[in-house]
Amino acid sequence: MVPRYTRPAMAAIWAPENRYRIWFEIEALACEAMAQYGAVPAEAAKVVREKGDAAMAAFSQADLDRIDEIEAETRHDVIAFLTWLAEKIGPESRFVHLGMTSSDVLDTCLSVQLVQATDMLLADLDAVLDALKRRAFEHKYTLTIGRSHAIHAEPTSFGLKLAGHYAEFARNRERLVRARAEIATCAISGAVGTYAHVDPRVEEFVAARLGLEPEGVSTQVIPRDRHAAYFCALAVIASGIERLAVEVRHLQRSEVREAEEFFHPGQKGSSAMPHKRNPVLSENLTGLARLVRAHVIPALENVALWHERDISHSSVERNICPDGTIGLDFALARLAGMMDKLVIYPDRMIANLESLGGVVHSGEVLLALARAGILREDAYRIVQRNAMATWTMLGKPGGRSFRENLEADPEVAGRVPASVLDAAMNSDSHLGALDHSYTRVFGEAGPGRAG
Amino acid sequence: MVPRYTRPAMAAIWAPENRYRIWFEIEALACEAMAQYGAVPAEAAKVVREKGDAAMAAFSQADLDRIDEIEAETRHDVIAFLTWLAEKIGPESRFVHLGMTSSDVLDTCLSVQLVQATDMLLADLDAVLDALKRRAFEHKYTLTIGRSHAIHAEPTSFGLKLAGHYAEFARNRERLVRARAEIATCAISGAVGTYAHVDPRVEEFVAARLGLEPEGVSTQVIPRDRHAAYFCALAVIASGIERLAVEVRHLQRSEVREAEEFFHPGQKGSSAMPHKRNPVLSENLTGLARLVRAHVIPALENVALWHERDISHSSVERNICPDGTIGLDFALARLAGMMDKLVIYPDRMIANLESLGGVVHSGEVLLALARAGILREDAYRIVQRNAMATWTMLGKPGGRSFRENLEADPEVAGRVPASVLDAAMNSDSHLGALDHSYTRVFGEAGPGRAG
Amino acid sequence: MVPRYTRPAMAAIWAPENRYRIWFEIEALACEAMAQYGAVPAEAAKVVREKGDAAMAAFSQADLDRIDEIEAETRHDVIAFLTWLAEKIGPESRFVHLGMTSSDVLDTCLSVQLVQATDMLLADLDAVLDALKRRAFEHKYTLTIGRSHAIHAEPTSFGLKLAGHYAEFARNRERLVRARAEIATCAISGAVGTYAHVDPRVEEFVAARLGLEPEGVSTQVIPRDRHAAYFCALAVIASGIERLAVEVRHLQRSEVREAEEFFHPGQKGSSAMPHKRNPVLSENLTGLARLVRAHVIPALENVALWHERDISHSSVERNICPDGTIGLDFALARLAGMMDKLVIYPDRMIANLESLGGVVHSGEVLLALARAGILREDAYRIVQRNAMATWTMLGKPGGRSFRENLEADPEVAGRVPASVLDAAMNSDSHLGALDHSYTRVFGEAGPGRAG
Amino acid sequence: MVPRYTRPAMAAIWAPENRYRIWFEIEALACEAMAQYGAVPAEAAKVVREKGDAAMAAFSQADLDRIDEIEAETRHDVIAFLTWLAEKIGPESRFVHLGMTSSDVLDTCLSVQLVQATDMLLADLDAVLDALKRRAFEHKYTLTIGRSHAIHAEPTSFGLKLAGHYAEFARNRERLVRARAEIATCAISGAVGTYAHVDPRVEEFVAARLGLEPEGVSTQVIPRDRHAAYFCALAVIASGIERLAVEVRHLQRSEVREAEEFFHPGQKGSSAMPHKRNPVLSENLTGLARLVRAHVIPALENVALWHERDISHSSVERNICPDGTIGLDFALARLAGMMDKLVIYPDRMIANLESLGGVVHSGEVLLALARAGILREDAYRIVQRNAMATWTMLGKPGGRSFRENLEADPEVAGRVPASVLDAAMNSDSHLGALDHSYTRVFGEAGPGRAG
Repeated sequence: MVPRYTRPAMAAIWAPENRYRIWFEIEALACEAMAQYGAVPAEAAKVVREKGDAAMAAFSQADLDRIDEIEAETRHDVIAFLTWLAEKIGPESRFVHLGMTSSDVLDTCLSVQLVQATDMLLADLDAVLDALKRRAFEHKYTLTIGRSHAIHAEPTSFGLKLAGHYAEFARNRERLVRARAEIATCAISGAVGTYAHVDPRVEEFVAARLGLEPEGVSTQVIPRDRHAAYFCALAVIASGIERLAVEVRHLQRSEVREAEEFFHPGQKGSSAMPHKRNPVLSENLTGLARLVRAHVIPALENVALWHERDISHSSVERNICPDGTIGLDFALARLAGMMDKLVIYPDRMIANLESLGGVVHSGEVLLALARAGILREDAYRIVQRNAMATWTMLGKPGGRSFRENLEADPEVAGRVPASVLDAAMNSDSHLGALDHSYTRVFGEAGPGRAG
Repeated sequence: MVPRYTRPAMAAIWAPENRYRIWFEIEALACEAMAQYGAVPAEAAKVVREKGDAAMAAFSQADLDRIDEIEAETRHDVIAFLTWLAEKIGPESRFVHLGMTSSDVLDTCLSVQLVQATDMLLADLDAVLDALKRRAFEHKYTLTIGRSHAIHAEPTSFGLKLAGHYAEFARNRERLVRARAEIATCAISGAVGTYAHVDPRVEEFVAARLGLEPEGVSTQVIPRDRHAAYFCALAVIASGIERLAVEVRHLQRSEVREAEEFFHPGQKGSSAMPHKRNPVLSENLTGLARLVRAHVIPALENVALWHERDISHSSVERNICPDGTIGLDFALARLAGMMDKLVIYPDRMIANLESLGGVVHSGEVLLALARAGILREDAYRIVQRNAMATWTMLGKPGGRSFRENLEADPEVAGRVPASVLDAAMNSDSHLGALDHSYTRVFGEAGPGRAG
Repeated sequence: MVPRYTRPAMAAIWAPENRYRIWFEIEALACEAMAQYGAVPAEAAKVVREKGDAAMAAFSQADLDRIDEIEAETRHDVIAFLTWLAEKIGPESRFVHLGMTSSDVLDTCLSVQLVQATDMLLADLDAVLDALKRRAFEHKYTLTIGRSHAIHAEPTSFGLKLAGHYAEFARNRERLVRARAEIATCAISGAVGTYAHVDPRVEEFVAARLGLEPEGVSTQVIPRDRHAAYFCALAVIASGIERLAVEVRHLQRSEVREAEEFFHPGQKGSSAMPHKRNPVLSENLTGLARLVRAHVIPALENVALWHERDISHSSVERNICPDGTIGLDFALARLAGMMDKLVIYPDRMIANLESLGGVVHSGEVLLALARAGILREDAYRIVQRNAMATWTMLGKPGGRSFRENLEADPEVAGRVPASVLDAAMNSDSHLGALDHSYTRVFGEAGPGRAG
Repeated sequence: MVPRYTRPAMAAIWAPENRYRIWFEIEALACEAMAQYGAVPAEAAKVVREKGDAAMAAFSQADLDRIDEIEAETRHDVIAFLTWLAEKIGPESRFVHLGMTSSDVLDTCLSVQLVQATDMLLADLDAVLDALKRRAFEHKYTLTIGRSHAIHAEPTSFGLKLAGHYAEFARNRERLVRARAEIATCAISGAVGTYAHVDPRVEEFVAARLGLEPEGVSTQVIPRDRHAAYFCALAVIASGIERLAVEVRHLQRSEVREAEEFFHPGQKGSSAMPHKRNPVLSENLTGLARLVRAHVIPALENVALWHERDISHSSVERNICPDGTIGLDFALARLAGMMDKLVIYPDRMIANLESLGGVVHSGEVLLALARAGILREDAYRIVQRNAMATWTMLGKPGGRSFRENLEADPEVAGRVPASVLDAAMNSDSHLGALDHSYTRVFGEAGPGRAG
């Protein structure tokens, strides 16, 4: 992920320093476990831990360079690290990595990194949820037009729209919690997963210390269906970001103008057109969603490794693990800020709601006619006819409102009292179930409508 | 999905008859609920139920044609169905669909169909799990070579390999159970989800009768992150099928010949080469996996519907819902049968395991040298040297086994007793943790090794 | 592809009858070629052709059933067909398929089918191009607002917008012509492509008769990079359909109302809301684009077949070849019709263009200030200030037009003459290069602006 | 793309320095063109060019920092650059970017960068083609077994296998040349593509100087179907890389051992198993192919920008443009080196070819029986029976070769002379058409077979 979309805390998880730190921790823990179960002298494990901790505490660019230098010869990253570590630890290093295979270290480390990244993403999601909840309660009774097919449908509440997005992000949070469990496993099972040279209790020991579960059966690696499921969760979350971003983009368009991203003092929207204030944050989120989403394909292709493993997944994961978590972290943080500061125009919402002459109440009128005993088919025809007449003449001389057209219709006049038509034209009927919905979503209805 | 990969029971779920049956059930239940909560006369609901049930019981091609005929005019499928239903029910039809929107019916119906399909897929997964478990216990102690990078690594058990696939399919089963919950929701909330014309209790009533959960907040539709998550689960399962299929394809290749798909009497492998017996089932599964997997992309693109919904998801779902479930149903059934009848050649496994002159025990030898006090770096050099010498001369005059080469090596001779080398060359050491792994995966270790 | 999105002519290409017809043609041509180059008696080739032609002419459901019956035993489709053919031809059938492999027939047949399908798609594209060109000339001088970020930018011509889509579809046509060449190859090269049992001149003979090129080097199959490139072309075309569909959806939205899909008499937009006229065609096209686009992934995954071939591509192609071409054929035909009948509202375009009080001319004003000697940075600040003031007060008491605000600005007043501001506010300046652009795209500028 | 898979020359194309250099060049050329066509004083254009050239020549980290600083306020990258440039140029800077929009600079710059990157990729492809051609001629007559379904089929030549990959990469080269033309366009057409404030001749002038074509009709941006087609080409190439990589992985597997990646002195294959030499380069290429391939999805999703543009494509392209070209550059260079140094074992190829007792000649025997007057169906049955008998007893006591089994078959004995069976068993018949195929692919057959 390019620096422009990278936040330092998430990037640090994927930096070499963090990786080497975790590698050492795994090796040291395994050594301690082996000491406990007999394969390694307790004293040696102590030396490994102490000298290793010291080396990691003093870890610097020089160490990175030295490891790279060794890897240039051995062409094997874990061996390069172990060789460097041996230089720091001395003879006791022969008890390091005993009976283990590189993937024991690599895959368990990846689990730790993904767990660290996921915890950060969960916090990001919480910030999004907080912003959405706050704005949903703020606008619980803000009337706005609901749209299907981008055509005015029936009134709704802007808060309810946000509540829908909140509910989606709450589901996304649950998905991410499950995805975290998917990848929070530890494998220390040797070259092909038989524990031939390492006691299974070592795996259990290391897993417990790292907050992971021991993998049920590993081959040489932790099975990649776990990582595929993880990236699927990120992709679903990214798509939820896109849905909300697209909503904001629509609301800000010049003809709608119901909401607007906060425009900073000094900000410039266009080099050529000084009047521009563009929804660039939500457009940016739309693009970031595409990036994160595309990772599902290589992640799924990584599942079918050959036999007990091939290494084709590695180059994929070296990219999509940082790119996916960094990209999503940036996007969620941006989304939370954007929703927090979103400028909302309730007056524009009312203006738009009323702009079609009242035809948005056609559904209620249809029911009223049905209640008055008119057959559904006939009622539909009558209402459609008057709605189309209203629509066609919108803003033109001689144009009449939907209400006026209905009253003038001989099939309506006399059969439906004016009070019924009045009631049908009242948008407030669409706010009646808000407490029901809010309670379902937030667990509370919130304060009632201001007098 | 083309007929070649379609099983009738799954196809029936997606047939128009089943859809209309579910549509009617939703309408009838909603009508009964409204009768209970006041909006509809109880007598009318009874008529709707009775005449409707009779019409559905007598449903024939003529009804399909009639509905198509109406849709050709109205260009709206739900209205076409309701019009047909009105013809069957008479005046009481005016109480049908009261205050509801088409999507209330369409989306709830899709939930029912997906639940039906998922229950079938869960049964398919159980058949795969059964076959894998049976074969895993059958071959618990069948020695075979573990391979990383398709290069012989260390011995393992063929049963353990199958146990790994079992564990993956058990995870896939859990994922599918969760995916089922994702899409098992019901929405009867009106045009934009405000319950303006329909009591929320109607939704709860219908949901309960259909075995669904009421949707937290719907817009006009059930939110599509649910369906995206569902197709992600199918894609992960498909990738697990591919992993096992690729394993079988490798095992059957002419140079390996450790396993073979059952070849039917009368079957012909090639029009030009009568000697051919090809792993066509597993290759077919590989292709089917690609198809099912590709559905994640449009399913994810479906999430960001505009405002309270647009209908772009519909054409996607009309295809991927049947194609995905039919394809996966076919693939899982084929996989279960293939694994059930897979012909396994333990003698070839032994032959391959031994074909590299014993170098596959290099890891154990490395440890033995380390235990004998040789520094890891030196031990690695010694073992690598002798392994490469063995490998290079494989099958050539003057070639020696790894064991022979080690004994002749001055750095080894005298430092490592023959009994230690013997022990290092014994593949059985890789079977020691089988009980541990089997218990983790299957909950039982199974019977011990036959004498 | 479900029947709802299937047109019969394209479906017929993928029907078994057409496949068997092409298979026979390939076998008969190969037989005739072998007769010419010595391997087959001329008399036998004549019998094969005559009896085979008769059998294909009389081909019926009974023949389909018989072939299926044989395949149920042999589990090989080409052998089943050849066996059926032998029943029709008699002893001379021993000269059929001589030295050939099934893939020679299968892959060459697929090429023929894809060429047939592509020619249909090219005709579809021509219909789209025709409709776009007609409407582009019709609306060459129809002023409308250009939008970037969905925010009003500067005026443009609606015809120019369509010209841009025309140019994209013209590129798509070129891409499809190239894609057709990609897959128009013939392979008759035997089991692994060595021509061991078949003269290369047979391949050249059959290719020439079928309008194909002989494949450079085939393995057992025609290499799948060709098919991958083909599906990439379909995906790019699908994305172009989506771009135009999204444009129409935007133009039809209730707040914009600049264009509208034709609404049929009798059509119903919603079961609940009789006032609805939804852009369902363009939304449907958006979904179909997602479907066609998703095929690129399995098509690309099909490239890396093992060694001289594996059959994993087959199940993929049995689905995506019909689905992709049928789906795109339907979508292009729908698009052509939709654009042909699109209802366009020039008065709404003008109303929208003018709805922001003239700030859409801020770019021209910026240039005018620069020309008047004001530094770019200062000019930008001045114009931005007045544009924002206009925008903020839009439709509110005390709100002034951009022109009025500028005139009242002390930094503008006296430095820029009114006539310059007048000129800057004239949308016609954006029509000046239309002849240039039209000539580039269509090869002709078309008639000048009506009086 | 992580540094591990990044080559400096390709990375430099995407560095900010190169971008700013190109931005300036576009602005300077546009200024010169405007001077020529009247809008800008010639003297001013000269000042812009001279002071700008000087600023770019002295460009340093301080300049990068300054631009970032301005962007932090304006939140607009092009404005930030122009402001920096104005600081360097002084008052004449008011003639820079006159009547242009940011995208004129951004999109034309992207075209230049993609062209630069593509030229590098073309050179990479040439290196792959060179290596493949050299090895194909080297091994023109190296017999090896052709495999379909990974089952031995019929003999072929290893050179011919490579010729097939050469042909695919030659097609890929053509595709990349066309893809280069797709994205080699220039747009200087103003805010929404109407040339309202800029003469179309400016576009033509700049395009010609930069080696680009003027875009037919641009909106605010160059249409993204071009970039989608470009990434499709990269994806097809990546899939070709994967096909060859998978071939090498198969050939190196322990049971096949027909080829091997060069193993460096000092290289270590595994931390736990010193005997390992793994095909890590080809596995790495497989993973890189997945990464590059996945870019097609966001690239295709970028096509349907809203109206005259939205900026959702930007974050996608900021990542996939460098990642795709850097990843493919690295992969192609790695592939060329790998194929160049690939260790090939002709003796293992012969050993494998002969390992199935001669059944790989079943096709030729089938033809011989047919020529001897046996009906195809009967001949197939006879040959299949003897091939299966041979196969089943391979390496077992009493096992006989295919030839022996045939001679002992009463249906064969006496009907087919021994000389015919001898000829059928001769692999050289599969080399007869090599000159034909090589001439098609390489334009030359190369030297004849060494005596």
